[in-house]
Amino acid sequence: MTTTVPDTFLQLRSEVTADGSELRLSLARVPTPKPGDGEVLVRVRATPINPSDLGLLVGPADLEAAKVSGSGEAAVLSAPIPPSLRRAVAARAGAALPVGNEGAGEVVAAGASAAAQALLGRTVAILGGEMYAEYRCVRAADALLLPEGTDPRDGASCFVNPLTALGMVETMKLEGHSGLVHTAAASNLGQMLNRICLEDGVPLVNIVRSPAQAKILKDQGAKIVCDSSQPDFMESLVAALTETGATLGFDATGGGKLAGQILTGMEVAANARSPGGFSRYGSTTHKQVYIYGGLDTGPTELNRAFGMAWGLGGWLLTPFLIRIGKEAADRLRARVVAGLKTTFASGYTTEVSLTDLLTPEAVRACNRKATGEKFLVRP
Amino acid sequence: MTTTVPDTFLQLRSEVTADGSELRLSLARVPTPKPGDGEVLVRVRATPINPSDLGLLVGPADLEAAKVSGSGEAAVLSAPIPPSLRRAVAARAGAALPVGNEGAGEVVAAGASAAAQALLGRTVAILGGEMYAEYRCVRAADALLLPEGTDPRDGASCFVNPLTALGMVETMKLEGHSGLVHTAAASNLGQMLNRICLEDGVPLVNIVRSPAQAKILKDQGAKIVCDSSQPDFMESLVAALTETGATLGFDATGGGKLAGQILTGMEVAANARSPGGFSRYGSTTHKQVYIYGGLDTGPTELNRAFGMAWGLGGWLLTPFLIRIGKEAADRLRARVVAGLKTTFASGYTTEVSLTDLLTPEAVRACNRKATGEKFLVRP
Repeated sequence: MTTTVPDTFLQLRSEVTADGSELRLSLARVPTPKPGDGEVLVRVRATPINPSDLGLLVGPADLEAAKVSGSGEAAVLSAPIPPSLRRAVAARAGAALPVGNEGAGEVVAAGASAAAQALLGRTVAILGGEMYAEYRCVRAADALLLPEGTDPRDGASCFVNPLTALGMVETMKLEGHSGLVHTAAASNLGQMLNRICLEDGVPLVNIVRSPAQAKILKDQGAKIVCDSSQPDFMESLVAALTETGATLGFDATGGGKLAGQILTGMEVAANARSPGGFSRYGSTTHKQVYIYGGLDTGPTELNRAFGMAWGLGGWLLTPFLIRIGKEAADRLRARVVAGLKTTFASGYTTEVSLTDLLTPEAVRACNRKATGEKFLVRP
Repeated sequence: MTTTVPDTFLQLRSEVTADGSELRLSLARVPTPKPGDGEVLVRVRATPINPSDLGLLVGPADLEAAKVSGSGEAAVLSAPIPPSLRRAVAARAGAALPVGNEGAGEVVAAGASAAAQALLGRTVAILGGEMYAEYRCVRAADALLLPEGTDPRDGASCFVNPLTALGMVETMKLEGHSGLVHTAAASNLGQMLNRICLEDGVPLVNIVRSPAQAKILKDQGAKIVCDSSQPDFMESLVAALTETGATLGFDATGGGKLAGQILTGMEVAANARSPGGFSRYGSTTHKQVYIYGGLDTGPTELNRAFGMAWGLGGWLLTPFLIRIGKEAADRLRARVVAGLKTTFASGYTTEVSLTDLLTPEAVRACNRKATGEKFLVRP
């Protein structure tokens, strides 16, 4: 070890009580692990709160009723879980789980292997949970080496958003589609996807929820933006789908009617593009929407006015990366590192420490899921 | 030609008016075609009204407001289409379409080819639409020869229900599942699927909507029946899914919460079968439900309490048969013919002529989709 590392460090934990009635956030003081041969210990400097962290962080708790006991390191934030939602968290009840999908920081200790030693003193991006903590020990092979001089803030979001956005384009190619639809399109991820699609010449229909969000994307060169807050939303969506022929959608909202509206729009567009020959079962064009987030935790409602050639499903980054294999995944990672300050740049509106996070105001703000707001934790 | 065939015949037509406001059922008198070389002309004797015929037959029309003008061959039944549902039928507006997926009857004329000539005078089952008619000309290769002496009534439903039921089991094998869930399980198709699964040793969870339906299936040896009208439905479903490990469902209802309840039950069962290790994204077990019917035309509602490894989609017989190829499809057809009076027997509660069908009472009864009721048209 070349740097003095404390014996213990702070790690944020999220616990659903054994009876499922309450969620508790607290800081645990845990022993600092000594890296094994092929491992490195990273001093976590910057770790984002992504929408995909929120399920584990706050789950279905009612944060409007959150309260805090204790203070500083000993603070405990608690919030009730509505009875109807307890079944969904039964499997994690009673366990205090670490949180935080990804982050970046310096390698302060390394195992004996050459791969681990090569990272000592360098800034790396890491993925794998437990990032809302002062330290995180990972396999050297899983650390993404960032160029010398990279600010950990710039490397904090190397994986989830960039690889998800790239994964959407790769999925489009793998499954034989030729254009994409994306919801919550003004998000950090959405802006990234827009930049990728502009670079790669992929037709992209951006769906946003307000004129302000539409402006964000148009200012960034987005070619097609449909605003679901407008009365002519369905007409503009059908026109966009007819123009692009996009038959694959990625929906970050999950709840509500949006996924079904996209499928309906695709069906109308498919019939418009292949006129004549009514089929009682709808078009033969396969229309697919993947739900990859749950910004709207309400039920998904499908009117099924889109024939029989359709699919809806969950989409998750890790199974996708396994599906494409290590070589293809490494190619995507290299593209991210090369575009860290351009195509894959993230913006943060608020920076918080671990203790800052344990307040009702902070968790409510994180959970608000408003496009444009994004938290960065600086442990 | 060896039989006297009239120059014209009656064919039922379903038309959505050009403005989408009204559905009209009528009988057209059309010229009898002369079979081409490889074709045969079938005198249709029996053709069922399957749930899959109803979309084309009556679409989203409000049959409570149906009325009839004219009488006999000249009768026209008309019913309004609610404005909110007109988009779904826009593609067929203005066309008077023939209806009826399948049927059986005698070959009364045949083209010059040996295959066509071999069928002359024989009873065949046929698929391909336009069956609610006195005659239907089809390719000889598409006619399924029935054993000598088969009553057309017994051969009327050779395709849709039998091949759909067999297709469910084949899809299960193709997609790597090891058990099935089926809704509306006391239907003709459901009883058939139950017999197939008993024969083949496939674990099957039958979901029904009443104690009377549960009794129908249990009397036929069904091992697992879950009744969605009972207060302990979810508990019994989870227990059944845990016991069978079934991860593929076929849902005939489409609307409502049932598809989501099945996915939720599969998720709870997957976690129960692989205890330990909570994952924020749910189990890694892929859970799939295919909607193959629309008995409930209301929206599909998913609470998404089933992690991220799931899919929902449409399932249709014809694309499935194309997917498995001719050889495999012929194997399934041969199994149907061999079991026409046993495994694949259908029951009908009402027989109607073509003119009988053009009354508000008859179309409403056909559209009621009550398990146990089934109409057979005798043109």
